[in-house]
Amino acid sequence: MPSGPRGGTPLRYDPAHASVSVFGAGGYTGALAARLLHRHTTFELRADTGRGDVGRRLDDLYPYHRVPLELEQLDLDRHARVDAAVVAYPHGAAAELVAELHRRGVRVVDLSADFRLRDAAVYEEWYRPHPEPELLPEAVYGLPERYRDEIKDAAIVANPGCYPTAAILALAPLARTGAIGDIVIDAKSGVSGAGRAATDAAHFVTVDENVNAYGVPRHRHTPEIEQELAALGAGVTITFTPHLLPLDQGELVSCYVTLNPGGDRVDARAIYREAYADEPFVELADTPVGVRAVRETNICRISVHEDERTGRVIVFGAIDNLWKGAASQAVQNLNLMFGLPEGEGIS
Amino acid sequence: MPSGPRGGTPLRYDPAHASVSVFGAGGYTGALAARLLHRHTTFELRADTGRGDVGRRLDDLYPYHRVPLELEQLDLDRHARVDAAVVAYPHGAAAELVAELHRRGVRVVDLSADFRLRDAAVYEEWYRPHPEPELLPEAVYGLPERYRDEIKDAAIVANPGCYPTAAILALAPLARTGAIGDIVIDAKSGVSGAGRAATDAAHFVTVDENVNAYGVPRHRHTPEIEQELAALGAGVTITFTPHLLPLDQGELVSCYVTLNPGGDRVDARAIYREAYADEPFVELADTPVGVRAVRETNICRISVHEDERTGRVIVFGAIDNLWKGAASQAVQNLNLMFGLPEGEGIS
Amino acid sequence: MPSGPRGGTPLRYDPAHASVSVFGAGGYTGALAARLLHRHTTFELRADTGRGDVGRRLDDLYPYHRVPLELEQLDLDRHARVDAAVVAYPHGAAAELVAELHRRGVRVVDLSADFRLRDAAVYEEWYRPHPEPELLPEAVYGLPERYRDEIKDAAIVANPGCYPTAAILALAPLARTGAIGDIVIDAKSGVSGAGRAATDAAHFVTVDENVNAYGVPRHRHTPEIEQELAALGAGVTITFTPHLLPLDQGELVSCYVTLNPGGDRVDARAIYREAYADEPFVELADTPVGVRAVRETNICRISVHEDERTGRVIVFGAIDNLWKGAASQAVQNLNLMFGLPEGEGIS
Amino acid sequence: MPSGPRGGTPLRYDPAHASVSVFGAGGYTGALAARLLHRHTTFELRADTGRGDVGRRLDDLYPYHRVPLELEQLDLDRHARVDAAVVAYPHGAAAELVAELHRRGVRVVDLSADFRLRDAAVYEEWYRPHPEPELLPEAVYGLPERYRDEIKDAAIVANPGCYPTAAILALAPLARTGAIGDIVIDAKSGVSGAGRAATDAAHFVTVDENVNAYGVPRHRHTPEIEQELAALGAGVTITFTPHLLPLDQGELVSCYVTLNPGGDRVDARAIYREAYADEPFVELADTPVGVRAVRETNICRISVHEDERTGRVIVFGAIDNLWKGAASQAVQNLNLMFGLPEGEGIS
Repeated sequence: MPSGPRGGTPLRYDPAHASVSVFGAGGYTGALAARLLHRHTTFELRADTGRGDVGRRLDDLYPYHRVPLELEQLDLDRHARVDAAVVAYPHGAAAELVAELHRRGVRVVDLSADFRLRDAAVYEEWYRPHPEPELLPEAVYGLPERYRDEIKDAAIVANPGCYPTAAILALAPLARTGAIGDIVIDAKSGVSGAGRAATDAAHFVTVDENVNAYGVPRHRHTPEIEQELAALGAGVTITFTPHLLPLDQGELVSCYVTLNPGGDRVDARAIYREAYADEPFVELADTPVGVRAVRETNICRISVHEDERTGRVIVFGAIDNLWKGAASQAVQNLNLMFGLPEGEGIS
Repeated sequence: MPSGPRGGTPLRYDPAHASVSVFGAGGYTGALAARLLHRHTTFELRADTGRGDVGRRLDDLYPYHRVPLELEQLDLDRHARVDAAVVAYPHGAAAELVAELHRRGVRVVDLSADFRLRDAAVYEEWYRPHPEPELLPEAVYGLPERYRDEIKDAAIVANPGCYPTAAILALAPLARTGAIGDIVIDAKSGVSGAGRAATDAAHFVTVDENVNAYGVPRHRHTPEIEQELAALGAGVTITFTPHLLPLDQGELVSCYVTLNPGGDRVDARAIYREAYADEPFVELADTPVGVRAVRETNICRISVHEDERTGRVIVFGAIDNLWKGAASQAVQNLNLMFGLPEGEGIS
Repeated sequence: MPSGPRGGTPLRYDPAHASVSVFGAGGYTGALAARLLHRHTTFELRADTGRGDVGRRLDDLYPYHRVPLELEQLDLDRHARVDAAVVAYPHGAAAELVAELHRRGVRVVDLSADFRLRDAAVYEEWYRPHPEPELLPEAVYGLPERYRDEIKDAAIVANPGCYPTAAILALAPLARTGAIGDIVIDAKSGVSGAGRAATDAAHFVTVDENVNAYGVPRHRHTPEIEQELAALGAGVTITFTPHLLPLDQGELVSCYVTLNPGGDRVDARAIYREAYADEPFVELADTPVGVRAVRETNICRISVHEDERTGRVIVFGAIDNLWKGAASQAVQNLNLMFGLPEGEGIS
Repeated sequence: MPSGPRGGTPLRYDPAHASVSVFGAGGYTGALAARLLHRHTTFELRADTGRGDVGRRLDDLYPYHRVPLELEQLDLDRHARVDAAVVAYPHGAAAELVAELHRRGVRVVDLSADFRLRDAAVYEEWYRPHPEPELLPEAVYGLPERYRDEIKDAAIVANPGCYPTAAILALAPLARTGAIGDIVIDAKSGVSGAGRAATDAAHFVTVDENVNAYGVPRHRHTPEIEQELAALGAGVTITFTPHLLPLDQGELVSCYVTLNPGGDRVDARAIYREAYADEPFVELADTPVGVRAVRETNICRISVHEDERTGRVIVFGAIDNLWKGAASQAVQNLNLMFGLPEGEGIS
C-alpha cells in the first residue's frame, strides 16, 4: 500500500485510475512521457500542455507516438486537478511550476535539473540562484536503483539527468567499495539529448559525419554525478566530457576509474554481479556495450573491464537518453510512487 | 548601362586576375563558391558579403572550407568594383541585386531561380510577380553542357537548380530524339539541399532514419525542367517529386521515360555515349549510379537502362547538389565567361 | 496428408498455448519473429533453429530482442511438434521445409517468396523451377487487409514481400476502381531489407552518404505486385525500381499512377478513407508520409495526392520492412489463423 | 637535395618523374594512396597490385577515386622496378614484402604496423614474433611533425597508425614539458578505419544508430603511442580505448592528461601555439574540434582546454583516418623522401 507523500497527506487517488498531466509535452522527453502514460494500464493521461505549439495535436507533431491529444495552454485550475504530474520544462522554469503543483497537493516527477542538487549553493554555482530552495528537502533523487524506498513516498521526484543516470549506475557498485581514487568519464550522446529546438548545432549537416565534444570542461551534469558518487563513498572531483554523435537516441558513458593506491584488489565483475542481481532494469554484459542494445528501453546495460597494465577499471554504461535517461525512468518513478509494479508500461 | 560582352564591347578585365565577389557567402552554396574561388588560380576572391552573420569569419562558420575572410555588410560601392559576382541570395531577393550589379557592369552568375525561367508569366505562376522582368532576355541558362557558347558571352548567367541540373543532363540526349512521350522523375536529395537555416525539417532527429517526399505535387523546379526539355524537343508535362534523405550532399534523379508509341526503337545507351563523348563533367556508367561516386565533384554520373517488359527507358543521374548542382557549376560558368579552361579550380 | 483447418478437421491446439517454432531465426526477420512470439501472450515460442550460428544464443546475436534461447540445429522430429511454424529461409530453400512441415500437419507462415506467386510458371521465370508446385493451391497470400478470411483457415500462408506489402496497400483502393492505366513505383528501403549477410553492398562505408537503385529493371518483387494488382482489377505491367538508403529499418513506396484516359474522375482521398476506415494497421495521412512514423510498428501509413497538372495520382506508402514487411505481419497472420485478436503482440 | 636512403646508395630516380607502385591497392588506404599519387604532379603511379580483386579496375571498385588502373597480380620483377613503394598490406604480411623491396633498393612507406615499434620484443608482445627484426633499425617512424629530417633519408618509413597520429600530435607539446603524470585517451573512429572487409562489425545495421568500444583494454595502437610519448619525455603507461561511430571517415582522440603533482603550472595553450607555429598540417582551434573540419585533408586539428576544477589538461585531436591517419601522410612522407614540397598533392 502506498503511503502517500512525505508530508503525510492522505492520498486522493484511486489506484486503478491515477490521473496524470504532462507539462511541457511538446519537447522530446515530455512527448515520450505522454506516450508511455497514454498506453499505461493504470495511469490515465489527463492532459498535455505545451510551452509552444499550443493547439497542435501530439500525433501530428510526433506521429510515431500516436497520442491523439492536443497540446493545451497551461491552465493550472484544470491541469493540476490530477494525482500526479510530469514536468518537462527547462531548468529554471520548472522550479516555479513544480512548487505550485506541490502546493496544490500534486505529486510531481520533474525532468529538469532544478531539484537534483541537494545544495542550493552548488545549484547556484552551476546554474543560477535557485528559485525555490526551501523545497529542496522535499525532493528525492529519482534513480530507483538507488533511492527506491524514498521515491515511494516522495512528493517531488527529481528525475536524474541522462548522463548521471548512466554514469551513476555504471559507477555505484565500485563507489560503494571506497576504492575509487579518480574518475574520467567520456560520454557520447545522440542528438535527441540536445532537445527539439532547431539550432545550428542540431542541423543534420552539422552533426552528420561528425563527432565533437561540448560543454568542456564544465558540463552541468558534473555536480549531479559528483553528489551521488560522494553519497556512495567516492568523494572525488571528476572529469566529465560529453560528445555529440550522429545518431538519434542513445548514450554511452565510458568511465575510466583509477583505484586508490595500496587498496585491496577488487573483483570488479563480481561486485557488479552482486550489486545488480535483482535489478530488473540493469543488464550486465561481458563485452563492451553498445547503445543499440538499449534503444527504446528502460534498461541500463553495463560492462566492466579490468586493465592489468594500468590497474584501471573501465566501465561502460549504455542507456537510451530519452527513455531510461528521462521519460521511461519518470514512469518507473511514478509506478513506485503509486505502488504499482515498477516495470508497468515500460517493459 | 551594362556593356556586356554580348554587345561586343571588349572585356575590361585582366584575365590573369579577374576579381570576384560572392554575395550571400554565409549559406552553403555561397560559402562553397567562396572556397572554390579562393583557391582558384585565376580568379581573385575580393569579398564575401553576408545576409546574416556579418562580421564572422568564414573559416569559423565553415572550418572545412578554410577561407580566411570575414562576412561583410553589403556595400555595393566597394563590393561591386569587381569583374564578376556570384549571387547566392534567396529567390526574389536575388533579382534586385543582380539588376544593380548588371547596371554597374558586373557580370553575374546568379544561384537563385530568378533568371532561370524565360517567361515572366511562368515565374509568376510558380513564385511571385517577377521583380525585374525586363532583364530576363539578358540571362543565359547556365548549364554549360547545353549553352556553352551562350554562356561565354553572357552578362547574366542563371545557374540551374540542383534537380534541373541532374534531370536535364539525364534526359537531354533522349529528349533530342523526339521519342519521349511521358516522364516521371523521382528525385532524392541530401539535406544540404535545403540550406543552412535551422528548421524543424533540417533537425537531425527529423531526418535521421527517415525518408519522405516534399513539395508534392508542385515543386518549383518543375517548370525549369519542363522549359529545358521542351527546348530540346520533349514538350511534356512532367511529374517531379523530390524526397529528403538522411545524408548531407548528393542528389539522385530516377527518371522513368515512356517513349512515344509507334516510334522507332532507340538505342538509348548509344545515344548517350555519343551525346556525352566529349563532356568532361558527364560520366556514363553501366550500373545504377550512386551519389557517393560524385561527392565533392563537378561531375554528373548517368546510367541508362532499357526495360523490355514495359518498354520504358530508366535513366539515373547523380550529382553533388552543392557542387555541380550549385557552386562548382557557377565556377564552371565563370571559367567559360572569362575564357579560362572550363575545369579550372573544380577538377 | 495435412489435415489443415481448411479441410474441416478440428483444430488440435489449445488456443491458450499454441506452440510455435521459428525456423531460420538467425536472420533479421526470423529473429524479430522470435522476439514477437516470445513476448506474445498466447503463443508459446518453443524453439528457434538456425541455418548458421547454431549454438549461439539469440540474445547474444541480437541483444536488443532479449530472447533467451539458443539457435538449434534443425531436427524436425523435435521442432515440428508444434502447432505452427514461421519459416524464415531463403527463397528456394524454404519450399522444401514448408512442404515437410505441411506433411506433418503444422500450419506455416512462410516468409520466403516460394508460395507467393500462384503460377509456377511465373515463379520459374523470376526465380527458378518451383520445388513444390503441387502445394501452391494450398497457400494463401498473407496480406490480412486483402485475404483476412482465407488466412483464418489457411494451412500455408505466404507472407508477402516487404515492397509488395507497401505497394499493394498503397494501390489497392485505386486498383479496385478499375481506373488505373499505368504505374511507376519508385521504392526506397533501409539496409536491413537486404538481410544480415556481411556483403560489400551492406558495408557501412558503401551505404553511408549514398543512395542508388538496384535490381534494375527486373526486381523479383515485381510479379508479386502485378499478380495482386491484377486480382484487384489493375492488370498492368508495372515499372518497379527499389533504391537502397542509408538507414536501418523503413521502406517507402512512391507510386505514380496514370489513370485510364476518358475515365470518370475519381475522388482518390475519399476512396482511400472508405477502403481503410476499419483497418487497424493502415493509417491515412494528409501530408507525404515518412518511414520514421512507422518504425517498429505493424502499420502501413499512406498518403494520397492528386496532381492536377498531369492528372496523375501519387500515393506514398510507408512501412517498417522488418515488421509489417515481414515479421509482425507474420504474427498478424498467426493471430488470424488461431482465432486471436489480430493485433495481439504487435500493437 | 635529397641525399638518398640511409645506406648511402646513390639515388636512381629522376626527381621529375619518381615512379611509385602501390602494393595492396584494393583496400581503403591503398586505394586512396593510389588516387593521391595518380594525381600527383611529380610521382608517376606505375602500378597497383591487389591481394584480392586482381583484374578489377580501381575506378570500378572505387568510382570516387577515378584511378583508371587495374589491380594486378603481384610480380616483383615488374612492380619493384620503381623508385618507391607504398605497402598497404596487413600487419605481418607487410614485413616480408617490405624486406624484399628493400633488398631491391626500393624506398618504402609501409602502412602496416610492422616497422613502427622499435623493439621487436614489444612487437611480439602485442602482435606475434617479428618476421624481419633485423630491418627494424632501418625504419623511421613516419610522423613528419616529429621525424622530418630522419624521414628525408629513410629507406623504410613506418607510417604511423591512425590513432597514434592523432594522439601523438595532440600530446607531443605537453609531453615535451615533462609535466605529464598520467593519460587516458578515449578515441572515436569512423568505420573506414576498420577496413574494407565485409564483416558483421562493419555491416550497416550493426553500426547505424550505435556506438561502442572495442579492443578493450588492449588495443594494438597502445604501445606505439607509449613508445613515442616516452621518447618525448612522457614515459607513462596509458589507457587507450577506441570506439566505433556511425560515420565513414574521421577520428577524434579525447586526451585526459593528469599533470605531475607539484610541477610548475604550464600554460598549455601557449605551448601548443609555439610548438605548431610552423607546421603546415597542424591547426589549433579554440573550441573542441570536430572531425568534419578535417575530412579529406592531411590536417590534424587540435584544441587544448585546462580544467581548473581537476587540474587536468584536456586535448582533442581530429584527423581523417584515411588521410592524415594513413594515405595522405604516406604521400607527405614520400614528398619528404624525394625532396619535394611537403604538401605536394595533398593540400
